[in-house]
Amino acid sequence: MKIALLPGDGIGPEIMADAKKVLDALRLPNVTYWEADVGGIGYRRHGHPLPPETLEMAKAADAVLFGAVGDPTCDGLERHLRPEQAILGLRQALGLFANLRPATMFPGLEDLSALRPEVARAIDLLIVRELNGDVYFGEKAIRTLDDGRRQGFDFMSYAEDEVRRIAHVGFKAAQGRRRRLCSVDKANVLETSQLWRDVVIEVSAEYPDVELSHMYVDNAAMQLVRNPGQFDVVVTGNLFGDILSDQASMCVGSIGLLASASLGEQQTAFGTKGLYEPIHGSAPDIAGQGTANPMATILSAAMMLRHSFGREQEAARIEAAVARALADGVKGADLGGSAGTREIGDAVVARL
Amino acid sequence: MKIALLPGDGIGPEIMADAKKVLDALRLPNVTYWEADVGGIGYRRHGHPLPPETLEMAKAADAVLFGAVGDPTCDGLERHLRPEQAILGLRQALGLFANLRPATMFPGLEDLSALRPEVARAIDLLIVRELNGDVYFGEKAIRTLDDGRRQGFDFMSYAEDEVRRIAHVGFKAAQGRRRRLCSVDKANVLETSQLWRDVVIEVSAEYPDVELSHMYVDNAAMQLVRNPGQFDVVVTGNLFGDILSDQASMCVGSIGLLASASLGEQQTAFGTKGLYEPIHGSAPDIAGQGTANPMATILSAAMMLRHSFGREQEAARIEAAVARALADGVKGADLGGSAGTREIGDAVVARL
Ligand SMILES: CC(C)[C@H](C(=O)O)[C@@H](O)C(=O)O
Ligand SMILES: CC(C)[C@H](C(=O)O)[C@@H](O)C(=O)O
Repeated sequence: MKIALLPGDGIGPEIMADAKKVLDALRLPNVTYWEADVGGIGYRRHGHPLPPETLEMAKAADAVLFGAVGDPTCDGLERHLRPEQAILGLRQALGLFANLRPATMFPGLEDLSALRPEVARAIDLLIVRELNGDVYFGEKAIRTLDDGRRQGFDFMSYAEDEVRRIAHVGFKAAQGRRRRLCSVDKANVLETSQLWRDVVIEVSAEYPDVELSHMYVDNAAMQLVRNPGQFDVVVTGNLFGDILSDQASMCVGSIGLLASASLGEQQTAFGTKGLYEPIHGSAPDIAGQGTANPMATILSAAMMLRHSFGREQEAARIEAAVARALADGVKGADLGGSAGTREIGDAVVARL
Repeated sequence: MKIALLPGDGIGPEIMADAKKVLDALRLPNVTYWEADVGGIGYRRHGHPLPPETLEMAKAADAVLFGAVGDPTCDGLERHLRPEQAILGLRQALGLFANLRPATMFPGLEDLSALRPEVARAIDLLIVRELNGDVYFGEKAIRTLDDGRRQGFDFMSYAEDEVRRIAHVGFKAAQGRRRRLCSVDKANVLETSQLWRDVVIEVSAEYPDVELSHMYVDNAAMQLVRNPGQFDVVVTGNLFGDILSDQASMCVGSIGLLASASLGEQQTAFGTKGLYEPIHGSAPDIAGQGTANPMATILSAAMMLRHSFGREQEAARIEAAVARALADGVKGADLGGSAGTREIGDAVVARL
């Protein structure tokens, strides 16, 4: 099992070290770890946020565990050299079209949410975000119009096969949960959304056991505040998924606890090839202080064991250890506690 | 002063009647009211959601007071015949490029928000949403690609003059408030956003007294949950504004209390020509029962008096009367009370 570790910028290296510690503690047989630069550090050391050797390594690996990218000193660079291009480039180059972002309340942490405890407690949803299309990867530029005005433009689109494959991921995920799928779009304004809705409805014929509903994105943003407990699985496009999944994570209260998986169609000898990353960023303001919470990265490693290596048992062990550590009061600064990065990693290892 | 009343669908006629009652009670001199069909009722009676005579009336009026459109029986119609096209058509035909959506906590209503009372209490923000551009009005279609696949597409763009004029509205609004403007975009992915950001920064040179910040839309959706009190004025594009303003309204707790103004460049003898509407929808499920809360429409009428007729005093009287009615416990079903539409309208009139 070949795992590429890409720690990236800011707190990336710290949180990655503790995720690795947890993986090591499982003593899985036949694991090879590779490591490479990505993001701002990739640019500084190799002249590109996604250096060719990093991309090759990610391609050759069975799974990628990703820390975080983002570096304020790169703000002035041209778009294609900025750290975020590394994650966009990896998603595209590896064909990772399905982003799974579970948002679940950890028992006892209701008080961390800005939502009322009774509202927050009910959160148990999974956002399935399309990750290879939409306005993210269409033609885009800043140009000068004939009349001399500058214009910025981006081409938004979805083709039916792109919608179909993510719809299947959404329906299958719902089958493994509470069998409800809510497709979010803006079909009252966007033709991209109208096609999305049409195709999701077509695909639904294959999943008579899943209850499908549709919601406009503005309403979804309201409902995620009003009553997030109403959602089971949400499937949506790249742009709306970006917004709603971050919003949902904040409803849970700590963005330091939320993991994600980005999957494609490629199968390896062990499972589906994927990239796993915490949904939080590189947090340059606290980098190097040993105070970052590694739990989201540790939980991302658990998702990796589940999806890319078929190791459900070990995945569940990690998740249970994190839950137990939290129940025992092991909390980082993001959760109002004082445990440092190392301490949190050790606490999880001790509870494996 | 010529006011076009467009009640629309669902609860539209009921809430409009009570807004009119409040306006009548002010006994303003020289007001002429016109009324016309719009939305689903426009389609059923005249074959179009925005019948030509309705559009002509809206053009000739100094201000438009709009109820709500949306009718589930129209779902199967072609896009250009659906009720929502009426509001999109009016925004475009009247050049209403600036949508102002204040979201403020009414004292004593903190318990209605899904947010913790201490978080909700701090909400006092204004979203300035661009309303004539973005992916809303670009070229769009569902087409068949050369390889036979169906594709939906929408062209997203902003030209510099479109950004500049809405930026000025944002900065001026901030000058009249707490002098902080947060511009929301997705400049790390979208070129439309990159131009938006560049132009907002250019315009900021004319407003040295306003503190400008920038936020990515995914982060903004998080921050609106985590700590909405941090925002004063938010300026953003049409699509992000649609999502964030609905989210912000739900943070306040009742969508039945929130008003909006859509303004253009056209000046009348009395002020800026505009369209005013509650941000809630037509609520077909409770239409005709006399239970809808008319307060958002009444507050929209107050915004109309302020922006289109320079009647700040009367606007403030209406707003104070609504606040007093709420403080006295006059609450509709949306606020957990039992007051009906008529009763709420009467209660506001009594407190003018
Ligand atoms: C960094 C950025 C390009 C990225 C995105 O918009 O997809 C991030 O917000 C995310 O959600 O992973
Ligand atoms: C009805 C719809 C077209 C409209 C929009 O998206 O602008 C509505 O959601 C709004 O915000 O006024």
